[in-house]
Amino acid sequence: MRAHRIGIVGYGKIAQDQHVPVIKGGDAFVLVAVSSTRGAGPPGLDRIFRDYRDMLAMGDLDAVAICTPPNVRHAIARDALAAGKHVMLEKPPAATLSELEDLARRASAANLTLFTTWHSQANAGVDEARRRLQGQRVRRLAITWREDVRRWHPGQTWIWEAGGFGVFDPGINGLSILTKIFPDPIFVQAATLSFPANADAPIAADLVFSTGRGEEDLRANFDWREDGPQIWDIVVETEAGQTLHLAEGGSRLSVDGREVVAQPPAEYEGLYARFGELINAGTSEVDAAPFRLVADAFMIGRRVQVEPFTE
Amino acid sequence: MRAHRIGIVGYGKIAQDQHVPVIKGGDAFVLVAVSSTRGAGPPGLDRIFRDYRDMLAMGDLDAVAICTPPNVRHAIARDALAAGKHVMLEKPPAATLSELEDLARRASAANLTLFTTWHSQANAGVDEARRRLQGQRVRRLAITWREDVRRWHPGQTWIWEAGGFGVFDPGINGLSILTKIFPDPIFVQAATLSFPANADAPIAADLVFSTGRGEEDLRANFDWREDGPQIWDIVVETEAGQTLHLAEGGSRLSVDGREVVAQPPAEYEGLYARFGELINAGTSEVDAAPFRLVADAFMIGRRVQVEPFTE
Repeated sequence: MRAHRIGIVGYGKIAQDQHVPVIKGGDAFVLVAVSSTRGAGPPGLDRIFRDYRDMLAMGDLDAVAICTPPNVRHAIARDALAAGKHVMLEKPPAATLSELEDLARRASAANLTLFTTWHSQANAGVDEARRRLQGQRVRRLAITWREDVRRWHPGQTWIWEAGGFGVFDPGINGLSILTKIFPDPIFVQAATLSFPANADAPIAADLVFSTGRGEEDLRANFDWREDGPQIWDIVVETEAGQTLHLAEGGSRLSVDGREVVAQPPAEYEGLYARFGELINAGTSEVDAAPFRLVADAFMIGRRVQVEPFTE
Repeated sequence: MRAHRIGIVGYGKIAQDQHVPVIKGGDAFVLVAVSSTRGAGPPGLDRIFRDYRDMLAMGDLDAVAICTPPNVRHAIARDALAAGKHVMLEKPPAATLSELEDLARRASAANLTLFTTWHSQANAGVDEARRRLQGQRVRRLAITWREDVRRWHPGQTWIWEAGGFGVFDPGINGLSILTKIFPDPIFVQAATLSFPANADAPIAADLVFSTGRGEEDLRANFDWREDGPQIWDIVVETEAGQTLHLAEGGSRLSVDGREVVAQPPAEYEGLYARFGELINAGTSEVDAAPFRLVADAFMIGRRVQVEPFTE
């Protein structure tokens, strides 16, 4: 099968750190163009566009990876599908659930591949945790996602605006692991969202989940104010008495204290392999579940105000 | 076709005002039982249960209408489907989108009918507006839903709690008309939600919509502080220059100032006719679109604090 000819829309940190090197390091895709409103692109690449629509007009482009901020993804993806291109979306896949629903419908109608990526799902520890939890009942869940926003998002003011998601920007990675590994349907039952007095997006969030069965203790704690060790941990205790501990965002898995998976993260290698498979199979993978949990948390969450954020 | 034997779960205002008389007035359903935590039910009905699970155990019950507050609907609907009953849900259909998704999956797996009702959609003016807008482009939309919460929801404290939806409880009726009549996909682009200082749910909301095409002026204004004339109005101007005006919640429609539909509301008659058709056809109608717009508005909306609410 020949390599798919792909263009990247949006040449920010994630495109530079992950998408470009991973595309170049694999053989399923070949990077033929980049579009970026600043006109930036990787060295050595001929075709760099300021307007993504000029890139979409290329006859020899098969697919695009959309790496812009979420608020413009829908329009770009819609235009890409209209131009006959397969589409890979960075997380979260759109600004709203209604936008994502619309893209899913359009891709299906056009017989094109739409792939909503959740990079944290693409870790070996996550697959193994999912396998081990199948058919189990969970007694306790603790998702702990604590990082220092000053370190990971320096100068990114859009994350504090309404619609910028705030601490759910990293937190949704934990939720994407949750929806992949959890053996039952799971719902947000209550949430407390902490908004800095000078921001329109939360800096911390505490969620309580339910499976509707009762009895369980299922929680998540997201906090962007962690200046100690950074934590991206999920602990799951089953009713059978087993404890699974996914650490470092899903790349390490321990069971009852014994490490069973410890692989260096290869998230984007996994995502591009999957995107290639989906295109070859002529199908889509649209997973709205993590995004839906975020919307649910905003809809039913109680807001509290905390001290102003200063970078 | 014999009448479907139905039970009502939750015997509050909407059950008493609409469900019971409409079931009794039609011939598609016969009311055989009611469950209510207070043990209340209509005069003359033998089978009144305090625990809905006892009602679900009735062998001769075909379907249930769930008229409880939204936060307990998922568990009741899940149990009803597990007991082999068709399910009709009052609006909004669940506490969260994830709960609704789960119910849709369960109904489909069990080959049972799930019907998410949006009573405002069941007005003659709404169908006619939809018909007239097909294939049109809309230049301007103004949804105005202004009512006095003290008059319509006296003493209902749950509407002010987190997850109680606040002014979206009536506002979602306007959104349910919008998603039914609007000729294009439509998205929440921005929202301002006004929270009383002493409440965890909004008393007012201003939404700006987009179709992603630009140029349009699409807005909604929901306000629960209206002590003047109560307004449930939708005005739509097409690019072709026509103005549609849906008034009184969808029961009256004028086009360019001339009234074309003016029928007394018969919302629940329409809903029960539809529920009967769905059961007979062995299919479901799960429409999440209005609920998704609400979740989107909460997720991307900016919050402002307004004066405390006192009843």
